[in-house]
Amino acid sequence: MIEIVSSANPKFKLAMKLHERRGRQQQQKILIDGIREVRYAMQSGIEIETLFVSNSVLAEQIEHVTELVNSTAGSAFYLAQDLFDRLSYGQRNSQVIAIAKTPKRSLDHLQINSPAFLVVVEGIEKPGNLGAIARTVDAVGADGMILVDCVTEAFNPNAIRASMGTVLSRRVVASSSDRLMPWLKTNHITSYAAWVDDSQSYHQADFRESIAIVLGSEAKGLSRQWTGESVKKISLPMRGTADSLNVSTTAAVLLYEVWRQRQF
Amino acid sequence: MIEIVSSANPKFKLAMKLHERRGRQQQQKILIDGIREVRYAMQSGIEIETLFVSNSVLAEQIEHVTELVNSTAGSAFYLAQDLFDRLSYGQRNSQVIAIAKTPKRSLDHLQINSPAFLVVVEGIEKPGNLGAIARTVDAVGADGMILVDCVTEAFNPNAIRASMGTVLSRRVVASSSDRLMPWLKTNHITSYAAWVDDSQSYHQADFRESIAIVLGSEAKGLSRQWTGESVKKISLPMRGTADSLNVSTTAAVLLYEVWRQRQF
Repeated sequence: MIEIVSSANPKFKLAMKLHERRGRQQQQKILIDGIREVRYAMQSGIEIETLFVSNSVLAEQIEHVTELVNSTAGSAFYLAQDLFDRLSYGQRNSQVIAIAKTPKRSLDHLQINSPAFLVVVEGIEKPGNLGAIARTVDAVGADGMILVDCVTEAFNPNAIRASMGTVLSRRVVASSSDRLMPWLKTNHITSYAAWVDDSQSYHQADFRESIAIVLGSEAKGLSRQWTGESVKKISLPMRGTADSLNVSTTAAVLLYEVWRQRQF
Repeated sequence: MIEIVSSANPKFKLAMKLHERRGRQQQQKILIDGIREVRYAMQSGIEIETLFVSNSVLAEQIEHVTELVNSTAGSAFYLAQDLFDRLSYGQRNSQVIAIAKTPKRSLDHLQINSPAFLVVVEGIEKPGNLGAIARTVDAVGADGMILVDCVTEAFNPNAIRASMGTVLSRRVVASSSDRLMPWLKTNHITSYAAWVDDSQSYHQADFRESIAIVLGSEAKGLSRQWTGESVKKISLPMRGTADSLNVSTTAAVLLYEVWRQRQF
C-alpha cells in the first residue's frame, strides 16, 4: 500500500475539500472518519472510493483495519500521521478515513413496517442535533428519518460523528415538504408535530397506529406546512425556567414513548 | 460606568483566567455569559462580583442589561467589543458577562419534595452532557441533580451555556459517593441505576415512590458503588447498531418517564 506523505498530494487536497459543504457538493462525495463508521457505511451500501489508513495504526486495530481494506473495492493508501490528523474530524484514534460517493436516498428507498414509525426533521441547523436524533432513531428501530429543508446535510462530518455513523443508514433520507405531505397521506401515516404550547401532552396520543413524529428547527420551530388539520399537535410538558428542551432531547422522549406504547 | 479598553487591565486578565479550570479553582470564581444566564444566576442566589457589559449593547437589550446592572451589588464596567469577544464563551450577542463567587452547594442545600425526584450523575466528562441533563432536570422539575466525581464541574462555562443557565440552579449540588449513599438511605430514596444490559426495562419500574435516577459516565458507566443490592437496575432497551445512547438522551427518556408515571 502506497503512503501519502505530502500535503501537496492531489488525493489529499481533494479529500481536505470535503470538510466544507461546498467541496462535498462539487465532488458529490463525503468523508467518513472512524473504523466503526466506515464499517457501518459499507454495511449500508455506501460505495467507498478511497480509504486512508493512518500510518501509525494501533496494534489492536490492525485486524479491523485490514478487514476494511480487504472488503472495499476502492483504493487504499497509508497517510502520514500529520496529514491524517488534518483530515480527521476529531475522532480519537480513528485509524481510517474513507471517501465515498454521496448516497442519494429518497422516500422511495424507505422500507416501512406496519404500523409505520417515522421521524421527520425540518430545518435542523446543528450537526450535533441531527446526529443525536439519528442515534435515537437507530436505538428505537424506527423505519425512517426524513430530512426536510435541513441546513445541515446528513453527511456533514460532524453529523456523522455525533450519530456514531447512524446517519449513514439506509433509513435516513431527504425529501421536500411538497413531496412528503402527499406521500404520508398515501401511506396512511398520521403526523404528530411537536410544539411548545398547550397541545395534547405527548403521552396521551395513541402512537400505535402508523405515525410520523415531526420536529422543527432549534430556532424557528416548524414551518406553516405542519400546522394544517391533517397534522396532530403534541407537546412535551415543561415546568422549568429554560425556554424549551433541545430538539434531540425532545426527539428521544417522543421516540421512546412510541416504542413504550408499542410494548417492547 | 468605566470602560475597559486594554487587555492589560488586571480585572480583564483575572477574568480571562476563569476560562480554565485552574483559574476558577484558584480564584474560587466562575464566569457567567449571557443576559438570561446572569439573571438566572442572580435569581438562584449567586453573588455577582463584577458585571462586564459589551460596549456595543444592542438597542433592544439595553433595558435588560440596565436591569441587571441595577440589581447587582457588584461593580459594573463596559468592555471594549474585542475584549468582550475574547472573554465571551461563544454565546451569540451575549451582551453581559458576570464574574461570581463559586457557589458551594451540597446535599444539605437540597429541598426535597415527597415523593422525592433526584438525579445522580457520576463521572460525567463532557460539559455539553452535563448541561443537557441539567436542562432536562429543570424541564421536568426534579428536586435535585447531584454531581458525584464529575470530571467537569457544573460551573464549567460550556456546561453553563449548554444548560441555558440551569446548572446555576440551587438544585444542582455536588457530593461524594461516601456521603451520598447513606444520605439516600436516610431519606428513604430508592436508587435506580441505568445500565446497558438485560435489566428490567425502565418503564416497568415504579417511579412513583421517592427515587434517584443514577447515570454513569460516557466512557466508563457507573462505578462499583452503584452495583450493590440497595440499588435497583433499569435499562433502556435498544435494538440499533450503535453501542448506546448518549447519557443526556438516556437521562431525558428516564426523567420524562418518571414524570409521566406521576401524571403530569
